[in-house]
Amino acid sequence: MFTPALLLNVAKLEANGARMRKAVASRGLDFRPHFKTAKCIEALPFILDPANPRLTVSTLAEAEAGLGAGIRDILYAVGVAPNKIRAIGDLLARGANLAVLVDCLDAVRALCGAFSGANHRPRVMIEIDTDGHRAGLAPDAPDLLALAGALDGLDLAGVMTHAGESYLGPDPEGARAYAEREAQGASEAARRLRAAGHAVPIVSVGSSPTATFPGGTHDVTEMRAGVYALGDLFMANLGVVAPSDIALSCLVTVIGHQIGRNWILTDGGWTALSQDRSTANQAVDWNYGRVCDEDGNQFENLVVVKANQEHGILSTRDGTPVPDLPWGSRLRILPNHACAMADQHRVFHALRPEGVEVWRRVEGWAPTGVDT
Amino acid sequence: MFTPALLLNVAKLEANGARMRKAVASRGLDFRPHFKTAKCIEALPFILDPANPRLTVSTLAEAEAGLGAGIRDILYAVGVAPNKIRAIGDLLARGANLAVLVDCLDAVRALCGAFSGANHRPRVMIEIDTDGHRAGLAPDAPDLLALAGALDGLDLAGVMTHAGESYLGPDPEGARAYAEREAQGASEAARRLRAAGHAVPIVSVGSSPTATFPGGTHDVTEMRAGVYALGDLFMANLGVVAPSDIALSCLVTVIGHQIGRNWILTDGGWTALSQDRSTANQAVDWNYGRVCDEDGNQFENLVVVKANQEHGILSTRDGTPVPDLPWGSRLRILPNHACAMADQHRVFHALRPEGVEVWRRVEGWAPTGVDT
Repeated sequence: MFTPALLLNVAKLEANGARMRKAVASRGLDFRPHFKTAKCIEALPFILDPANPRLTVSTLAEAEAGLGAGIRDILYAVGVAPNKIRAIGDLLARGANLAVLVDCLDAVRALCGAFSGANHRPRVMIEIDTDGHRAGLAPDAPDLLALAGALDGLDLAGVMTHAGESYLGPDPEGARAYAEREAQGASEAARRLRAAGHAVPIVSVGSSPTATFPGGTHDVTEMRAGVYALGDLFMANLGVVAPSDIALSCLVTVIGHQIGRNWILTDGGWTALSQDRSTANQAVDWNYGRVCDEDGNQFENLVVVKANQEHGILSTRDGTPVPDLPWGSRLRILPNHACAMADQHRVFHALRPEGVEVWRRVEGWAPTGVDT
Repeated sequence: MFTPALLLNVAKLEANGARMRKAVASRGLDFRPHFKTAKCIEALPFILDPANPRLTVSTLAEAEAGLGAGIRDILYAVGVAPNKIRAIGDLLARGANLAVLVDCLDAVRALCGAFSGANHRPRVMIEIDTDGHRAGLAPDAPDLLALAGALDGLDLAGVMTHAGESYLGPDPEGARAYAEREAQGASEAARRLRAAGHAVPIVSVGSSPTATFPGGTHDVTEMRAGVYALGDLFMANLGVVAPSDIALSCLVTVIGHQIGRNWILTDGGWTALSQDRSTANQAVDWNYGRVCDEDGNQFENLVVVKANQEHGILSTRDGTPVPDLPWGSRLRILPNHACAMADQHRVFHALRPEGVEVWRRVEGWAPTGVDT
């Protein structure tokens, strides 16, 4: 195989998908997996709930791919912008039952102006901020009722929050506290809206940590999660997946050595691995990725210590001598962050018992046919 | 324009290209620009020396693109690996005058085994390490002569070094010291090889800092550089380009605000900007990028303080209130590292006086037709 190459262990993807579906179903919640990690139509059957297929997307290109695979119920979970409105209209006209996200009056007014008299209208979700991580209105924000009240001719689909701070962990108990907070906050926002006379059919929460270590359900109806399906070192450090559950890796080849520096050089730099360093602040720092042999067996201490554009430099975490890996040896690098490593590649090489399949990933941001 | 979108100011690209060509020519050296930053056929005329077109590439996909544009003299400047040999043979058969890079006997033996009796043979460059940054043999390494001596049936094209440590600057004087060191080291290696009876036609050095702030020429025949053509905040901090020379930016749209936190949210996260933080250790840290208005006018203190997957969070470096940029405002983000930002995008939106052209970038690692 030409390296670097992105490898996806389909059996692990399938097991991770099934485990999360079962966990969410056991709590009586709908499941809306996030497409942003896999971004691949062939991976969809392994993550969707077949009885109730709903999808979360981070780009309208992902929405188009999901629609092409027959998924109509799609949440575009990034705050809407003016230049997205035409593409949203196109996807609606092609049959998508699309929900879009807002947290400000300007966005509501623009959506109403574009769609309130249209044949195909997006449903609208209001973004709630429960942990100060990113976007959204606080559950007790006065603007919340004003936003819902301004939805002239468009249906409120519900509220959603993403407990991004749950990535700070540092452990299952930390995640559980964030989960409780996001469920409480989203539910409080939903109750305020209902008290003001609005139907709030969906109360959507989630992240891989809070889906794995939930708090109380409160008024939550729906769970979202994405990265759990592929898994990575960051999620393994949090306990969301076991290290052996990580389905994603990058195949690289040894191209040289610097013996005096205890280095092995490979052809997998940051264009292949990403520059993600998200384990840097966790209990176990895997630098730019943990090294496995060609079959996926993890070396105890071998990591990517430096990532240049097309060169990866391997060494040991503890200064012990690097293993004997001659020129041409092939290795797998586990990702710090599956979304980031996968984003560097156009295709997965999907490893199945019957052989390797090439699975194309969704690229870019715009659906086809949109003037980019 | 659908955002995020990668913008390339062609007038600045042209000026940066002309300035570097002139500087290298004034020293009597050949110029072999690096394709790894632009990776785009339409950009080639602005960086190549038209009288003497030579190209450096970091992938064989770039080599194929260069060959398709009529460039035959190509240096593949990453140590060769076994799985690249067939693709190298294909490119040679298609007319590429390809030089490949080695720093170990295993690689030399594999190349000789594959090509020594072949109709189309790669030239071989030996990689020299002058600053402990990455790959290569030290100029005084005993193995240097053994490597050249093992080249059975293949021609030694010369030696090359990349002063990667020159990126540490911290300033023009620092770069000049690294430039002196790489020129001296590569020349010493060339002289040792010549004394042992080997022809060494090419002595190739370079990086954008050392090409901009050169030391003595010694035996150097050829200069390489890449990132200078697009420019970035890192190179501006080093003095390689002026801030106003930066030709690359990412167009993003304001999607919301968190007023209490002095934040502006945009649709440009790390998928659009990259996770590169290379200015973090320089005198001026631009976080995930410096913010300009839609026309490219730089705000004094506004930076991307956080980059999530599809969200960029802007704030000021000094805690002063963020400017009034309503929902839907469009902004340009300057890159920390042009190679990394560009690598996140499939196309450039090339800004020319006559309008915007879409220029496709070279993607992936393998030439077309290679079994990936």
